[in-house]
Amino acid sequence: MNYCSQCGSRVSVWIPEGDDRPRFICDRCNKIHYQNPKMVVGCIPEWEDRILLCKRSIEPKSGKWTLPAGYLENGETVIDGAIRETVEEAGARVEMLEPYALMSIAYISQIYLIFRARLSDTDFAPGKESLEVKLFSEEEIPWDDLAFIVVRETLQRYFKDRPNGLFPVQTGTITRPKTL
Amino acid sequence: MNYCSQCGSRVSVWIPEGDDRPRFICDRCNKIHYQNPKMVVGCIPEWEDRILLCKRSIEPKSGKWTLPAGYLENGETVIDGAIRETVEEAGARVEMLEPYALMSIAYISQIYLIFRARLSDTDFAPGKESLEVKLFSEEEIPWDDLAFIVVRETLQRYFKDRPNGLFPVQTGTITRPKTL
Repeated sequence: MNYCSQCGSRVSVWIPEGDDRPRFICDRCNKIHYQNPKMVVGCIPEWEDRILLCKRSIEPKSGKWTLPAGYLENGETVIDGAIRETVEEAGARVEMLEPYALMSIAYISQIYLIFRARLSDTDFAPGKESLEVKLFSEEEIPWDDLAFIVVRETLQRYFKDRPNGLFPVQTGTITRPKTL
Repeated sequence: MNYCSQCGSRVSVWIPEGDDRPRFICDRCNKIHYQNPKMVVGCIPEWEDRILLCKRSIEPKSGKWTLPAGYLENGETVIDGAIRETVEEAGARVEMLEPYALMSIAYISQIYLIFRARLSDTDFAPGKESLEVKLFSEEEIPWDDLAFIVVRETLQRYFKDRPNGLFPVQTGTITRPKTL
């Protein structure tokens, strides 16, 4: 952020009085521009003992598999957002959404909220951001070709819970991958 | 939003190619400025059969009672954010946080995530945004003096669940109050 979105002047970074962390603040109109994490909402669409994954057609991680999920939009409920993303990326309709995984990816300021959901039918088709959409049994999950750590972590917990038939909401933190 | 935060030029509102809703887009550098809901995180701090509420010292709803909660900050996990807000507003330490209520307030683009939490001790004190902090039994809850509908809805569900000793995660939608 370089300029004030309200008045167009330059912004500086400093800690406002009564605050405890630096903010972008307009040099002229003094507006404080808070920045906050974004929510990513999506689901694990279930069809009998299989779940639906999408092969990404866009970067990052083009060609890798993921759950249908994306940024929550202004004016949406979390459930409406998860349903919309599943339509957009997998051409699939889901129902009976239940919150399952709540994962904080603090280092990129993203909060993932993944629902379990029942696929309404098998009439799905890849959307613009997907190359392919496919149902996978547990044995078929492409663990080495998943797009994101948060997807792997969510699916690991899901398949651990599934034999019990109980899916308590999972909270977790995804930390920055170590680089050599 | 009037100006591009990247280059300082004017922005216009239109639907980018491949998108399905209007965005703020810079007239010069073409940067698309997405706007997304903010998360509010907080908790229901429990001490034996009582819960901790804060009387607000600031607008909106100064003088009304609320749960300790506030905007999640960049770089935080949802649990760290809820703990921080409870320290800031109630001077209270909480532990063993479990997600409880996930409420979408779509019309103001806020998502509330409220945890149940155990108060570590009764050494609490009002922070800058509170006039008073107090433990309430169910009979003592000031239902007519709660600050926000989302707080009332969360507490109603909480006290309905409590006799069962089971607190499944609640999802809900808060709609705009009707005006006459």
